[in-house]
Order: sequence, then C-alpha cells, then structure tokens
Amino acid sequence: MVTISVVKQVLDANDRIAQENRRLFDEKGIYVINLMSSPGAGKTSLVERTIEELRQRYKLAVIEGDIQDTYDAERVAALGIPVVQINTGGGCHIDANMVREAMADLPLDGVDLLIVENVGNLVCPAEFKVGENDKIMILSTPEGADKPSKYPLMFHESSVLLINKMDLMTHVSFDLTKARADALKCNPALAIFEVSCKTGNGLDGWFAWITEHIERFKTRTA
Amino acid sequence: MVTISVVKQVLDANDRIAQENRRLFDEKGIYVINLMSSPGAGKTSLVERTIEELRQRYKLAVIEGDIQDTYDAERVAALGIPVVQINTGGGCHIDANMVREAMADLPLDGVDLLIVENVGNLVCPAEFKVGENDKIMILSTPEGADKPSKYPLMFHESSVLLINKMDLMTHVSFDLTKARADALKCNPALAIFEVSCKTGNGLDGWFAWITEHIERFKTRTA
Repeated sequence: MVTISVVKQVLDANDRIAQENRRLFDEKGIYVINLMSSPGAGKTSLVERTIEELRQRYKLAVIEGDIQDTYDAERVAALGIPVVQINTGGGCHIDANMVREAMADLPLDGVDLLIVENVGNLVCPAEFKVGENDKIMILSTPEGADKPSKYPLMFHESSVLLINKMDLMTHVSFDLTKARADALKCNPALAIFEVSCKTGNGLDGWFAWITEHIERFKTRTA
Repeated sequence: MVTISVVKQVLDANDRIAQENRRLFDEKGIYVINLMSSPGAGKTSLVERTIEELRQRYKLAVIEGDIQDTYDAERVAALGIPVVQINTGGGCHIDANMVREAMADLPLDGVDLLIVENVGNLVCPAEFKVGENDKIMILSTPEGADKPSKYPLMFHESSVLLINKMDLMTHVSFDLTKARADALKCNPALAIFEVSCKTGNGLDGWFAWITEHIERFKTRTA
C-alpha cells in the first residue's frame, strides 16, 4: 500500500510540473509532441523524416531521451536542428522535470514544433506527461499485431499511431487488420497511418496531420 | 531524494523475496530462467521452440508475464505444458513476489526447468530478480544494432543473448559485428547465439547451452 501511494505522489508531482511546462509552451506558442515506441521501432527515423519535411515551413527543436549515449541527438544535430540530449541514467521514461531542465538549454523563442523523443519502452512512458499537446506512438510490423492487446495504455493515451516498417510486411507475419481493430478498441479516436520511414511511403498522411495540428494550435494561441 | 530511497527499499524487499524463491527452487532442484526482451522480439516463440526440443527429456513449467491478456499462456498451454499467467495490471516488469504467488498455482514437483517469460521491456525487468538462475535476453534484428549501447543494463545482467529474426537480415540494416562487440562490452561473459525462431536456424547452440546448464545444476543440487 505504501508503494502504491508513493507512486501516486510521484505521478501527481509529475503532472504539476507537466502543467507548468505546458503553460510555458503555450506562452511561447510551441506545439509539443511526445514520441513513444518500443526500442528500435523507428522513432529517430521518424524524427529525421519529419524534420526534412517541415524544416522549410517551421522552426523546430528536439529533446532526445535515452538511458545513456548521444547517438540519436547526434543524428538530429547533423540536420542542423537545436537538440538537447536527456540521459536518464537507467530511468525507463522521460518525466516532466527532465523536460523542464532540458528546456533551459534549448533556444525556444520562435519554435513552432518541439519533438520530445522518449526512451524506447512501450509501457512506462505512457504514464508520465511532459507538457505535450499530443502523444504520438509507433508500432513496427516485426513487433507483431498483438501489441495493442498487450500494451493498451500507450495506445489509449496516444493521438496518433504510426504503423512503421510496412516495407517488411511481406517478410513478417503481421495481421494489419487485427492491429488496427485492436488499437481502435483501446482508443476509437486514434489516427492511424501505415508508413515506412525507410522508403518514405505513407508519410504524407502523417505530415498532413502534424501540419494541421501545428496550424490549429497557432490559431488557438495567437 | 525520497523517491530514490523508496526505489532502493523496493529493490531490497524484492531481492529478499527473490532469495526465498531461489531457496525453494534449489530444494526442488528446479533450474529457472528469466526471459526478457523488447515487445515482439520473439520471447514466446523461443519458449515454444525450447519446449518442443526439451519436453521429451525434461519436465517443464512456464510462468507468463503480461500487462494484461492471456494469449501467450494460451500458446504454451496448447503444447500441454503447465503454465500460469501473471497479469501485472499496468506494471512494466515481473517481480519476485508475483513469481512467488504464481508458484503456488504450478505443479512444481519434479520440474527440471521453469521458464519465466517477462513483460516485453528492455529496461525495467533487468532490475528485478525473481529467483532465477540465469537471465536470458533476446534482441531481434529489426530493433537495430545500437541497442547494447542504449540499454546496457539488460545486456550486462544476462547470461545469454539470442539475436533473433536472423531470417530478416537481408531486409533490415542490422550491423551484426557492432551488435556483438557492443553487447560483449556490456558483458564479456555473454554467450551469444544467432537464431531464427521462425525457421529454427541456429537454435542448436541455445539448446546445447540450456541442456548443459540444467545438467550442471542437477549435479550441484543432487
């Protein structure tokens, strides 16, 4: 019982900081997404593709979350986009306080879209708000179609599901119909896009979604 | 600071229960493995393959860990092997207490090998002992070769690394040399097997390893 109440306190404290982050993002007019998936599902590849597509139109910034190392941040920095690496030092998710600290090191003025790439984990990140407008998740076809049934919270919490590695469909046994149906059972409002970050196929739908949401947010905060 | 000390207490309490589990397993002569990986890397497929190979020679039992649902336990039950499903109800790993409770529902007398299949998560399960002799992990080729650098604890804690989905090697960009080298940096004693649970290729090495360890354990506890 003690453990449960401590966890509850931790989540309450996190939510308060997330709200403070959100207020600051609102003041600055920054639309924020919290990007989550299993390890290796393609988060950084999606970040790269999204930067390439949107960089002419919008000012972007990225927070990279990893247990250790700076590989993903280096991939983003190579594109010339401001990026801060959070190393959780063993921690299995990014929390609101980590994002608050990272914000201090990012040039946020004029930024339209901040992408927070979470630690690769299909469980814990879904419980911790960081001040995002929307949670975006990736499920890759090699992981299997049973994942919405097995890890429902992340599907429930996300606004968008990108089914990635569609280029591998002929080589893996992934039941797309079941995956879509079970994901929608977790969250009937989920926007689902079938994509390949490797070939670029299917990403137009995602680019349209994110652009529409940045624009809608601009109108609201203007 | 409070949070850190609570986590430490939780881990200490867990280790005590894990030691009690271990004592019981020793008394009964049961060799126990704790099987871990990212979601969809092939844990249940490896369990199925291992059951098929060892069932003539050994008495087996399985504990299946999932956040919710019973799909994996049903796959094992279909093979006629005693299995208990643990549903963590949102929890991101199996702990020693869950295994202790599951043991009460398993016919453990005469069992040679107990397989504990953990929740799909490359982070948290590595921190929680359940009373196992060895931790076994799977990394699948679509996840990418950067995983040992990014999630070092699990590679450090495991005795065996199975690199699964080798059948997809020609379709994914997986740097096998880098993955092996970085995994061995985390843990120079790691036994590594390149396998495909889909085709069965490469599993002979794993079967030899597990058989040798069951036999060695029998000699020690006899």
